[in-house]
Amino acid sequence: MSLEIHPVLLCGGAGTRLWPLSRKSYPKQFVRLIGEESLFQGSARRLSGPDFAPPIVVTGADFRFVVTEQLAALEMAPADILIEPAARNTAAAICAAALTLDARAPGALMLVAPSDHVIPDVDRFQAGVAAAAPAARDGQLVTFGIRPNRAETGYGWLELAAAPDAAFSATPQPLRAFVEKPDGAAAEQLLSGGLHLWNAGIFLFSTTAVLAAFAEHAPETLAQVRAALDAAVTDLAFTRLAAGPWGALQDISIDYAVMERADNLAVVPYGGAWSDLGDWQAVWRETGPDADGVVARGHATAIDCTDTLLQATSEAAQHVVGIGLKDIVVVAMPDAVLVADKTRAQEVKTAVAALKANGAAQAETLPRDYRPWGWYESLVVGPRFQVKRIVVHPGAALSLQSHHHRAEHWIVVEGTAKITIDESVKLASENESVYIPLGAVHRMENPGKVPLTLIEVQSGTYLGEDDIIRYEDVYSRGQGAKG
Amino acid sequence: MSLEIHPVLLCGGAGTRLWPLSRKSYPKQFVRLIGEESLFQGSARRLSGPDFAPPIVVTGADFRFVVTEQLAALEMAPADILIEPAARNTAAAICAAALTLDARAPGALMLVAPSDHVIPDVDRFQAGVAAAAPAARDGQLVTFGIRPNRAETGYGWLELAAAPDAAFSATPQPLRAFVEKPDGAAAEQLLSGGLHLWNAGIFLFSTTAVLAAFAEHAPETLAQVRAALDAAVTDLAFTRLAAGPWGALQDISIDYAVMERADNLAVVPYGGAWSDLGDWQAVWRETGPDADGVVARGHATAIDCTDTLLQATSEAAQHVVGIGLKDIVVVAMPDAVLVADKTRAQEVKTAVAALKANGAAQAETLPRDYRPWGWYESLVVGPRFQVKRIVVHPGAALSLQSHHHRAEHWIVVEGTAKITIDESVKLASENESVYIPLGAVHRMENPGKVPLTLIEVQSGTYLGEDDIIRYEDVYSRGQGAKG
Repeated sequence: MSLEIHPVLLCGGAGTRLWPLSRKSYPKQFVRLIGEESLFQGSARRLSGPDFAPPIVVTGADFRFVVTEQLAALEMAPADILIEPAARNTAAAICAAALTLDARAPGALMLVAPSDHVIPDVDRFQAGVAAAAPAARDGQLVTFGIRPNRAETGYGWLELAAAPDAAFSATPQPLRAFVEKPDGAAAEQLLSGGLHLWNAGIFLFSTTAVLAAFAEHAPETLAQVRAALDAAVTDLAFTRLAAGPWGALQDISIDYAVMERADNLAVVPYGGAWSDLGDWQAVWRETGPDADGVVARGHATAIDCTDTLLQATSEAAQHVVGIGLKDIVVVAMPDAVLVADKTRAQEVKTAVAALKANGAAQAETLPRDYRPWGWYESLVVGPRFQVKRIVVHPGAALSLQSHHHRAEHWIVVEGTAKITIDESVKLASENESVYIPLGAVHRMENPGKVPLTLIEVQSGTYLGEDDIIRYEDVYSRGQGAKG
Repeated sequence: MSLEIHPVLLCGGAGTRLWPLSRKSYPKQFVRLIGEESLFQGSARRLSGPDFAPPIVVTGADFRFVVTEQLAALEMAPADILIEPAARNTAAAICAAALTLDARAPGALMLVAPSDHVIPDVDRFQAGVAAAAPAARDGQLVTFGIRPNRAETGYGWLELAAAPDAAFSATPQPLRAFVEKPDGAAAEQLLSGGLHLWNAGIFLFSTTAVLAAFAEHAPETLAQVRAALDAAVTDLAFTRLAAGPWGALQDISIDYAVMERADNLAVVPYGGAWSDLGDWQAVWRETGPDADGVVARGHATAIDCTDTLLQATSEAAQHVVGIGLKDIVVVAMPDAVLVADKTRAQEVKTAVAALKANGAAQAETLPRDYRPWGWYESLVVGPRFQVKRIVVHPGAALSLQSHHHRAEHWIVVEGTAKITIDESVKLASENESVYIPLGAVHRMENPGKVPLTLIEVQSGTYLGEDDIIRYEDVYSRGQGAKG
């Protein structure tokens, strides 16, 4: 019989510790860090199968189309996509998912998971979830405790009443206490004692149990989230939570808000491999260093290096060469390069903050900008011109728009474009070009079944993305928004 | 009275030790490594002024237009540009320059210098040349000996009969012996003894004296070079040495071929700063490390680094960030990134060889390709299209040509283009576009006074540079040659 577990994928986070691959505009969970899928896709796939209902995704407005595209690429359809008007940590996000699920499936089980973790053994993880289900049905709030393999100071730990068995069986056990992120000496003790597991932020509970816990321990959060849902707006497949009540929410984790105050807690030990890829040192560790400790990914050449990560995975076939390096992380992208002592990988945050303070776009955005209809990237910017590559998904359309300060040439290089200019409509196929005079009202659509690629050459006195007057937009965007 | 010294600038070299900034297609001497001028430009300027005639430049065919452009930017015109059909080391190059100069100014003084050295104090260097002139007029072969400041194993050394005076006056002195590149212990002895200077490969002599020395010590070289000059072809401003006799020449330095066998040698000590920028460690040393030993050039951010070079000077505004690095060299370009232990900078050659063996274009060529008429760079390559940015110098023209496999769209974004397609000629100015159908015979010219910039979008089944049929070319190039 099916367990009917509803996955809740949290993917609103925008960490900077994996810069430059992860940026605010395209964070870690959506990047193909390991293997062919993004971490978000890996998480969605891990929580799919006969025991699982379609997922509920909680994310930010900027990422909503990335979420739908990445799920579509897996041929998965989400049950709900909740859009947070602002990041408010896990308590609010989980509460919103619980209320949403409870409204259509009262008392259902929900499996809450971050979308940026690596858990390679899907069968073992799903078996752990199955083992946790009876306790969750009994009203327990179940957390998953990861078998620790180092004295990690970056995580909270979970203290059990008794050590897990030798096989690390997924048997629910009582939780004795939450342990805050320890210092190095304390972490060594936790590791050697055998009673402590890592807190990975993965939970299984029924909507009934978790909403009761919110009502008891965090009633204000519950009320505010309910208000944000009551005033939510449905926009295409997205549920946009109301900004007023959502903005007033406390920024607090579910551990602090609920778990640490509850007494109906259980832990299921998980003995398989797990990583949160929290920094480049973790990526190095998880991507299989060779006998010299070297990981060379993409167009990377390591000459006499040890314990080093060389990563050059951009489409642009950029080459990176390392010579005689020890304990170094190199992440090369065409617009930004990070070179760091591997043991100081946590300081990448500082570097990103410094770049941001200097106004460098690389701090937060990628050259490629993802839009509802596809993506574009700037190829070259000159004093009075700019060249872009634009890719439009099959069936998608850019808004009807005009520009005050620039004219545009479009040359179709792949696929077919349907182009409206003022009153005329024409189809342009490979190798055809179209000129959009300054001020002309125009729209581009991809009426075909394959992606449309075109080269846009802009010329004019001002080429900013905010020179746009929008007349109609199937994606409900306002004046001055991009594309 | 003017000294009438004829500079001979040797710039045929194509070293790989400063990769990725220096490539075979655009070597070190033409790169702006330090300051606003290339090393070649700095060398030409250093050997200009009232005492100097226009220079003779000896270079390879690939660099002839770079040479004329970089001299034109200094408002200098060369007396001769000798094109070596193949690199044959300094003996052949200097012999060719001596014969060329002697034919029009018998017995004139020539100052031979590599074009990739840094000598910041122009006045002091010119004073050294002036001090050497009387000895050169007397028939001496004068070399310049650099005051050593470290036990360098990468150079040959010059042994004097007596130590230079305390002020390191530029007084010609007898040379006692050439010393081959020493090992570390021997170099320490040379440095501490005070009798030895670095051999920088800079010479002053009369054409009479050096040709007599060739006749005595290297008569075959003299005969072959004479044959290569007799059969040389004049092409625009260039003297193309004949490939047959030139190819038969021995690959040998003037030190081995002539200097070490001659007895009319003098050394002028030079006490000013000098560097051959032989590797990235030398660039780091010469570019003024701060109190922490850090050099950060271009869009580079160093966080808690020591004794480290971070270089990101590409036009593309690529950012490089270093965190916690010690003794590391990082050179970032959009298509290639080098990260090396600074003490192992010499091994860059090995890395370039490895890249070349793997077929990576980055090993030898830059994204920007310099042509007689200007330059172009590929912005993006897709499965059936390519986008290029093309810049044409005022008055320059691309050859009359056609392509079998591709059509081209040209969009002018700066300046004015005169475009011939089959029988028709039209002018296209900013924001106008032109379509060149597959097979059409076409030419592009810049009839204006300012550079012409255009965006070329190619589409077709094959986009290689060798799909070109050339009908007329003011630059005398053959079928399949680029542009």
